[in-house]
Amino acid sequence: VAGKQTNLAWETLLDVPAPGTRRGPLPARLAGAIRAAIRDGRLPHGAALPPSRTLAADLGVSRWTVTEAYGRLITEGYLAGRTGSATRVCWAPRPHEAPPRAARTAENAPRAVRYDLTYRSDQRAFPRRRWVEAIRAAAETTPFDQLDYAQSGGHPRLREILAAHLNRSRGAAAEPGTLSVFSGAGQSMAQLSHALRAGGHTAIGMESPGSPRLWQAAQAAGLDLVPLPVDDDGLVVDALRDHPGLRAVCVGAARQVALGCPLAPGRRAALLDWARRTGGLIVEDDYDSEFSYAGPVPAVIQGSDRDRVALLGSMSRTLNPTVSIGWVVAPPRLVGEVRADRGLPVSPPALNQLALAHFMESGAYDRHLRASRLRFRARRAALAGALQRALPGYRVRGAQAGLDLLLDLPAGTDAAAIIQQAERRDMRLGNLDELRLVPEPGAPGLLLGYGNLSDRVVDEAVAVLADILSQTGASQH
Amino acid sequence: VAGKQTNLAWETLLDVPAPGTRRGPLPARLAGAIRAAIRDGRLPHGAALPPSRTLAADLGVSRWTVTEAYGRLITEGYLAGRTGSATRVCWAPRPHEAPPRAARTAENAPRAVRYDLTYRSDQRAFPRRRWVEAIRAAAETTPFDQLDYAQSGGHPRLREILAAHLNRSRGAAAEPGTLSVFSGAGQSMAQLSHALRAGGHTAIGMESPGSPRLWQAAQAAGLDLVPLPVDDDGLVVDALRDHPGLRAVCVGAARQVALGCPLAPGRRAALLDWARRTGGLIVEDDYDSEFSYAGPVPAVIQGSDRDRVALLGSMSRTLNPTVSIGWVVAPPRLVGEVRADRGLPVSPPALNQLALAHFMESGAYDRHLRASRLRFRARRAALAGALQRALPGYRVRGAQAGLDLLLDLPAGTDAAAIIQQAERRDMRLGNLDELRLVPEPGAPGLLLGYGNLSDRVVDEAVAVLADILSQTGASQH
Repeated sequence: VAGKQTNLAWETLLDVPAPGTRRGPLPARLAGAIRAAIRDGRLPHGAALPPSRTLAADLGVSRWTVTEAYGRLITEGYLAGRTGSATRVCWAPRPHEAPPRAARTAENAPRAVRYDLTYRSDQRAFPRRRWVEAIRAAAETTPFDQLDYAQSGGHPRLREILAAHLNRSRGAAAEPGTLSVFSGAGQSMAQLSHALRAGGHTAIGMESPGSPRLWQAAQAAGLDLVPLPVDDDGLVVDALRDHPGLRAVCVGAARQVALGCPLAPGRRAALLDWARRTGGLIVEDDYDSEFSYAGPVPAVIQGSDRDRVALLGSMSRTLNPTVSIGWVVAPPRLVGEVRADRGLPVSPPALNQLALAHFMESGAYDRHLRASRLRFRARRAALAGALQRALPGYRVRGAQAGLDLLLDLPAGTDAAAIIQQAERRDMRLGNLDELRLVPEPGAPGLLLGYGNLSDRVVDEAVAVLADILSQTGASQH
Repeated sequence: VAGKQTNLAWETLLDVPAPGTRRGPLPARLAGAIRAAIRDGRLPHGAALPPSRTLAADLGVSRWTVTEAYGRLITEGYLAGRTGSATRVCWAPRPHEAPPRAARTAENAPRAVRYDLTYRSDQRAFPRRRWVEAIRAAAETTPFDQLDYAQSGGHPRLREILAAHLNRSRGAAAEPGTLSVFSGAGQSMAQLSHALRAGGHTAIGMESPGSPRLWQAAQAAGLDLVPLPVDDDGLVVDALRDHPGLRAVCVGAARQVALGCPLAPGRRAALLDWARRTGGLIVEDDYDSEFSYAGPVPAVIQGSDRDRVALLGSMSRTLNPTVSIGWVVAPPRLVGEVRADRGLPVSPPALNQLALAHFMESGAYDRHLRASRLRFRARRAALAGALQRALPGYRVRGAQAGLDLLLDLPAGTDAAAIIQQAERRDMRLGNLDELRLVPEPGAPGLLLGYGNLSDRVVDEAVAVLADILSQTGASQH
């Protein structure tokens, strides 16, 4: 029997089940089949459904199954039933109810590029097995209730271990009570920025070139960004005189994020002096200083004055972003606001926190850092050497530490065009101009990250880059 | 030899190393020891350090070691050196440089309570081993480059699997292109709220009682909250007439978050009609409808009109918050803004996403849901039965589905006082009043979550609760 106004073969309704409705109780399967027919237009608006007794007989199911399915679809608004008359479809697809057009494009996971000169961790060197082992150990040894929502500010055990590590390896003055764990340095900056806003701050000084992710976090919290110049001694601290009202400054002290130089000792002292004189706060972005090749990296400023300096860091460069852990060591007066719940889950998964604690306690992290330092030292030397041979007229900066080099380009070179060229040749690069808060058209540069550059292709990558530079006329000679 | 102005026993400097400086290269160890002496006041401001040659002889180290250590501390701002005169300490502890007072209290991880009647997942039932296995499988089979920063909106594989699951189990109309993965339902609401703000929305209607975490997320994005009343048929849709300018409404359609009832079919239709008539958006909070005990839960409204409804959900109740995954299925026109990078890492760790994909594909998630339904059904029956026996005059609502019951209290009862009493007896409860946007002093209630209530203590918990209610005079008789 067919329902009125429709040619649907009712008796086959359960033969070709709607996707995912093959299993499960009969009423649910039947409701799913009818819903699918309504959705795809086989059962149009106003169509009458067969009486439940009839359909039950056709399908060889109980009448209860049919009334259950109808009832469910009535509840959901697909059908309308009135006593004494047929149950009818009361739903129609919206006119523009078609699969979203672009939805299926760009659905592929990002592909590994051959020459990855972006600024990132060494993806190949992420000790996955050890990390999974740490997750297993954490899952097996943690009381079940500690795997629920993570504690605001991070798990006490991880805070203790991280604080000890920072004190030892970076000369920080961190304590479990002042260190707060979030899901990355950006998130840490966001929480710190909110704390500053809550404390009456309205602006923060930012190095230009600097860290766009930190700008975004500060801006999203409502802080205005005040661009501050940098040179080969790091932040130009004297420039703070032009902003007498400024009470917060973000700085890469161990290594300027773009130029790669440490903040010069005199400026370090002047910056601390500024903070003490004005009651200001220094936000120290200590982002990759675990990696140093030409002597030790200076200890963090935060160790000199934990009341005037907040220290940001994360595991995203030294380990891998999927670890999803960053931190801020804040002056004690700010800790409460930094950890305040702002309605967003900013704590990394509890299991990740406990796994990292385990990973660090077992010594696996220190071993990973030592191995990474050796690897990066060799890779940096190979890259810097190849650049010198292939591009002898170019100035290379920032090779003493960190995970990238800055290649200065001749004034007038279109760095964006070079990067586009490079992409066509399966190479990704960083553009110095994109790290600038204030445009500086005369000083283009390329950032060559080697964290994730395969050792096998270093020379090849430099040859390709030199080729592109010579073609685009950006040669020094 | 002792430096001027100090009694420091220089020759013992390396005997009792500062914490964490026992190992490592000698210059670093020496710098650490001197830094520690400066920090703790043994080397006061202005103190002169021994000439490098002298100290080297005292310590039995090379002169290079000493100059390296001094140089490092000069860079860090602890020492000042001038050619021809002694190197001196130029750093003093700040007057209030003392360990933060409250820092060491409240450092303990939260303790499991005996009677946990808060609204949460079944912590004991989280299949940890299977979850760790899924993480291991994901780590072993995923190309290394996919473990880096997670793709905005989530990994395509997880989006595909989640969309299929929602379509099958919740009658949703989700596609990988419209479903976006974030680190929880709150984060998903935050991204959606930002998208609404970007599209010109200034306010959103919110059920009262409703979900404070969703309010927070919407408010943080700059949306005003318009309280809307609910009754035992769910959201009072007619009340939208009082807010003719409103174009977004958040609703628990399958189950009102506090009262536990589904949105009545007539209201469901009226709400959809409102959205279509006004061009408004329904934000459907489908938070725990996988758990149903009295017949099937209605399919989500989103399945009826994916252009007018955004669907929110997460794994925090059905699995565990440490999975750290939630989602929003948004109308196609909003997907771009929903996924827009706002400077915060809102994507869950890539490894978690891929582990969840694996967990779902292997059938482990469906098995977990089936087992959970049986367990919750029995626990709900035990709890509802015990309440009926121990507190026969009380009205219990919301028992058909979900993970909690609402126990109405007699008008005038001080619910907060009862909750305080309960805490003293190792019991945690939810307060209906805390879910209200608009105070309703005459209608107190307790929310009794049984997701994480140990089966062994159900009767005991109800006896304690009845005892407290009788003592505080909140008895119905």
